[in-house]
Amino acid sequence: MKRKFTLPGEAGHESLTLELAKRWGADVIRDSDGTALSDEILSAGYEIYSTICPIREHNPWIRQNLHARQQNFLSTTPVTATGSQLTIRILDGFFEEQFSVNDSENALPYWQVYDRTADELIPAESWKYADGTVTINAIPFRQYTVSFLAWRNWEEISMYNHTTNNWDKEKLMQFNPYPPGAMDYLKQWFVNWCETHPNSDVVRFTSLFYNFAWIWGSNTRNRHLFTDWASYDFTVCPEALDDFYEAYGYRLTAEDFVRQGKYNATHRVPSKQKRDWMEFIGKYVRSATRELVDIIHGAGKKAYVFYDDSWVGMEPYSGHFHEMGFDGLIKCVFSGYEARLCAHVHVPVHEIRFHPYLFPVGLGGAPTFSPGGKPGLDALNYWVSVRRALLRKKIERSGLGGYLSLTQGYPDFIEAMDKILAEFDLISNLHDSGAPATLKPKVAILHAWGALRSWTLSGHFHETDGHMLIHVLEALSGLPFDVTFISFEDDIPEDVDIIINAGEAGSAWSGGEYWNNPALIEKLTEWTANGGVFVGIGEPSALPGYNTYLRMAHVLGVDLDNGEKTCHGRWAYDVDKVEDILPDNFTIQARDNVILTDGNAHVLAADKTPSITINKFGKGAGLYLANFALGDGASKALMNLLMYAATGNTTAEGVSDNPNVEVAVFPRGVVFINNSDEQQEARCNWEGSAFSVRLPGYGMEVLRK
Amino acid sequence: MKRKFTLPGEAGHESLTLELAKRWGADVIRDSDGTALSDEILSAGYEIYSTICPIREHNPWIRQNLHARQQNFLSTTPVTATGSQLTIRILDGFFEEQFSVNDSENALPYWQVYDRTADELIPAESWKYADGTVTINAIPFRQYTVSFLAWRNWEEISMYNHTTNNWDKEKLMQFNPYPPGAMDYLKQWFVNWCETHPNSDVVRFTSLFYNFAWIWGSNTRNRHLFTDWASYDFTVCPEALDDFYEAYGYRLTAEDFVRQGKYNATHRVPSKQKRDWMEFIGKYVRSATRELVDIIHGAGKKAYVFYDDSWVGMEPYSGHFHEMGFDGLIKCVFSGYEARLCAHVHVPVHEIRFHPYLFPVGLGGAPTFSPGGKPGLDALNYWVSVRRALLRKKIERSGLGGYLSLTQGYPDFIEAMDKILAEFDLISNLHDSGAPATLKPKVAILHAWGALRSWTLSGHFHETDGHMLIHVLEALSGLPFDVTFISFEDDIPEDVDIIINAGEAGSAWSGGEYWNNPALIEKLTEWTANGGVFVGIGEPSALPGYNTYLRMAHVLGVDLDNGEKTCHGRWAYDVDKVEDILPDNFTIQARDNVILTDGNAHVLAADKTPSITINKFGKGAGLYLANFALGDGASKALMNLLMYAATGNTTAEGVSDNPNVEVAVFPRGVVFINNSDEQQEARCNWEGSAFSVRLPGYGMEVLRK
Repeated sequence: MKRKFTLPGEAGHESLTLELAKRWGADVIRDSDGTALSDEILSAGYEIYSTICPIREHNPWIRQNLHARQQNFLSTTPVTATGSQLTIRILDGFFEEQFSVNDSENALPYWQVYDRTADELIPAESWKYADGTVTINAIPFRQYTVSFLAWRNWEEISMYNHTTNNWDKEKLMQFNPYPPGAMDYLKQWFVNWCETHPNSDVVRFTSLFYNFAWIWGSNTRNRHLFTDWASYDFTVCPEALDDFYEAYGYRLTAEDFVRQGKYNATHRVPSKQKRDWMEFIGKYVRSATRELVDIIHGAGKKAYVFYDDSWVGMEPYSGHFHEMGFDGLIKCVFSGYEARLCAHVHVPVHEIRFHPYLFPVGLGGAPTFSPGGKPGLDALNYWVSVRRALLRKKIERSGLGGYLSLTQGYPDFIEAMDKILAEFDLISNLHDSGAPATLKPKVAILHAWGALRSWTLSGHFHETDGHMLIHVLEALSGLPFDVTFISFEDDIPEDVDIIINAGEAGSAWSGGEYWNNPALIEKLTEWTANGGVFVGIGEPSALPGYNTYLRMAHVLGVDLDNGEKTCHGRWAYDVDKVEDILPDNFTIQARDNVILTDGNAHVLAADKTPSITINKFGKGAGLYLANFALGDGASKALMNLLMYAATGNTTAEGVSDNPNVEVAVFPRGVVFINNSDEQQEARCNWEGSAFSVRLPGYGMEVLRK
Repeated sequence: MKRKFTLPGEAGHESLTLELAKRWGADVIRDSDGTALSDEILSAGYEIYSTICPIREHNPWIRQNLHARQQNFLSTTPVTATGSQLTIRILDGFFEEQFSVNDSENALPYWQVYDRTADELIPAESWKYADGTVTINAIPFRQYTVSFLAWRNWEEISMYNHTTNNWDKEKLMQFNPYPPGAMDYLKQWFVNWCETHPNSDVVRFTSLFYNFAWIWGSNTRNRHLFTDWASYDFTVCPEALDDFYEAYGYRLTAEDFVRQGKYNATHRVPSKQKRDWMEFIGKYVRSATRELVDIIHGAGKKAYVFYDDSWVGMEPYSGHFHEMGFDGLIKCVFSGYEARLCAHVHVPVHEIRFHPYLFPVGLGGAPTFSPGGKPGLDALNYWVSVRRALLRKKIERSGLGGYLSLTQGYPDFIEAMDKILAEFDLISNLHDSGAPATLKPKVAILHAWGALRSWTLSGHFHETDGHMLIHVLEALSGLPFDVTFISFEDDIPEDVDIIINAGEAGSAWSGGEYWNNPALIEKLTEWTANGGVFVGIGEPSALPGYNTYLRMAHVLGVDLDNGEKTCHGRWAYDVDKVEDILPDNFTIQARDNVILTDGNAHVLAADKTPSITINKFGKGAGLYLANFALGDGASKALMNLLMYAATGNTTAEGVSDNPNVEVAVFPRGVVFINNSDEQQEARCNWEGSAFSVRLPGYGMEVLRK
């Protein structure tokens, strides 16, 4: 029996490849970075995926065409002037194997020198560049920075593997398709590739053109100066900047990218300039990608794209993803939200890549397929996070990546995969009977990026776990609520019952400057007064300068005091423990600065200050949570609070009575999943019938209705 | 033997009064609120202090002259409009025994209605007032506030005692001397008083004219809506506001006082309008006070003033205090900094009032002279805090307050006072031999108020203990360093070695908007580069909008990240434990957002992030402490850090080797004080000689040099 499963093949391990392909019912065999497929594998009757990273592996051509290296803006560390002339060696502090100065004629006009003490641009006539240094006519004891264009000479993934994993392969450069002549070369390269790879059925793009931003420093005590998986910092070049000016009528400056040395982290409220640049580059990436996809289609092959390291410009939720003509999207998944991120994209085939990858060590550096590793347990742990999300939205395909030979000696992993694949099939079949039931409320997540950042912030969970919203998304990924993503500019969809604004003050997730808009407050206030539930988590709607720090304080019934109300009294309150709303093992971290606005909010939990409150507002309500972090009972607590705020009840049909067990109701059956590693009993009701199960640790059971 | 000591007498307890006067060597007997002195006491050969609160006890006249009640601006709680017309009952939420609406012809022009959603003033033609309510032409779902002038009908101390201590005496109103006719009445009252009180030698003003701001709410769950001991909110009336316009050429508005409902807490960065108003009212208070003092002096009596509850306008550090002609300043002292506050004022006599007062319960509500109370222990505890400050700067007189009869049955208190008064004398005598030695460094405290708020924030320690600076001041009050107070506008005094900026972001103590000034940064940067030590505690120099959040980050070598650098790498560091710099029992609370700027700062302590760092900068240095709170070893830690940063040494001549014992070196002897309640041994060196002691708990010993 074959299923929709992609196995990484490995030349030299033909019998293992074919044996596991059979055991796991693979229909596709793929190559991976660093593996090859032999003729024996290629001719064994499987579909073949071939991996291409369009911007790597072009060293010979780039060496002949140095203008087609990638570039970015860098800003020096601020330097204090001690006299009236200040000299700054501009690459100081940067990793010079990654960067070199671009002082070419079309780059220099984009350089800027700033007085950072006054935050003022220094006129071009007040500084000069020569031999790697900028000399500035300075005001003594002020600080200055130089922002300049730098070539990048070492593709970051290659650089990382060489530096961290001691690779000794050729150091790869990265190709920029934007400058004149580069795209012609690349298209011809693809034509040649297709001609020379007749056995490949699917070309799997490992990223498109531009890496996530990763600025390295010279000092090993602080090697990674800036890292952002969704940033567009690495997409610039003078040619593109000039074209932007033609298209948008204004010129972007270095400062638009370096932003006082803070750069453009996705977590921060984006500027108009950043959004315009993203739109501009996105359009370019799509049209250039389409040219390559057309070549692949013309050769009778399919084109899939891998959404992970270097997906900048791909933007599966831009509303334009389909323009590239991809036949499938592949996403590696540690977490439930990543499965949802993949599942809702408008593309014919959705495929997830399970973790752990077949590598000796995992991303965090812990052993997986090497001594001390427990890859079977790892696989089950990831699966439990992902499974609950798969129950909510169908994914067609799954697969593995890495070196298949590494699985030898890890029978626990082989067995874990047997179980995972069987459950994956079971879930797929249930979806074929129709979508699972969703419960009221329908939830909208409100943040600065809106739909563009549906089901993600900017990377994997462990890379963004300092942000509350990713915890909320991970919890929601397996809850039986419809979830949509809206920006501050969007209208509120008619059918939304709850709007969640969750994040740290000034972040894109909380909204920062977007709250400087009375019309937004009016709209949300009216919507709540008419029956909506506005949920604030952390520092929602936070913006300095108004009578309250939380702009939605009047709806939430709570505000945060950053010292402006240090002399104001605090309302006394009692904690109203609503029965069965918070699981016994659930805890929430209080803040020290939560205050009740008018004393009317019901306090459901508190620790020195209120940490969960519900405030009636007109026909609707405001629900506030001081924090939200995944952990014991957290998903269940969020589910109960959302239900309670929207309906007044803490449970509903189709909801499990055990916080460790979740339920999904399909037309063909009621599914119970045990998210804990211990045996659990659980019950739920549906349309007048009672269902109950006893499940082993991590167990799953489908009861026919 | 008589000493300079003021005893509260009590009619009906003549023999106790005279017995304790003799035992404690009193030279003065005083009355207190609620006590009278009988002829027997008045004629016993003691000087007599008589307490007068110039604004209370004028009920009959005020009832005939209602325009001479005191006033203030109030701002309603924001109310959300649900239609195009919004009606707000403006006293809703306020304690209506305290406030009534002033809708008189000269008051109404000062009222304002604000759209708080847009933070915009509503034109006067868009709202109208009638019968206690304001009706507004509103934009639906925006929030509005009304700011209005309110009469105050119940003096706050009287109100507090009635409400809290169930007083049933007449409810006192408070007299405003500003309106026409009021001052003439008050002067005549003082003339009469002097004529009818021939036995009184000293008139002790209990405050001057205006109370600290204390806005009460109608709901007992939040009775004290706003409380600020140094605020000028309660000094307004239309006549004064009109005169201000004449004097300053611009009109103050309600918003200048209510500031979006946040009012003008002393802890916040003051506006120019607030500072102008303080200057205006201060000038008025001084000139009106001088008229009363002249009457007292004309009657052959002295005038002292008590700096505590209602000292608004008195401003002992304005540089104009002497203009009032007071002969003495009295300050009640819980803490060392309050003794220093009193001691440095330019006035002939400085007198401190010991705690506990002779009241049944203390300010915190715990019993003192009532069952369960331990007033002797309380007295010693306060004394230990105050004693170390008295060693640094002389105070001439001391005294007690309250009901002397309450001391009966508390022999522990009587004995504690014996000991305290003997030590007070010893310290006074040492000062007579010359000032104690001070060590390098000389310290300047830098904040928005500068010298005006020398040795205080705005009240007692327990009222401001959420602010780091008060902990710093209390520690410094007993350390052998000269301390001065400078504002952001002052020049740096030539002889200052260390500048401390300590406080929460946006506070007057950290400086907030004052840091929006490149010249200030330049000045401090140059001063540090030339050898100064800039000490930042908490959120020093914090201001959003620049490349660093701490504007002195380049000097400190650390910055605070509020999320703008969420994608930036963090420097790895080792903790350099400098020997003997931090007492073993000292702990410091780390912050979660401290980051090293360039990795060069030495980290002396850390807990997840650096909590104490020293950064070389030119010939000087930046010293950063993430927090500072009094507690075990805290004063000693601060002393050592300041010495180390300024001199490179962690000890010096004249410094004790035991963190619990402090030393002061006078021309006539070396004083050791034990600040702990356990026996301690300590040593110190001075000019080549070694001194050592063994002290009982709280002990003090003077070794002759």
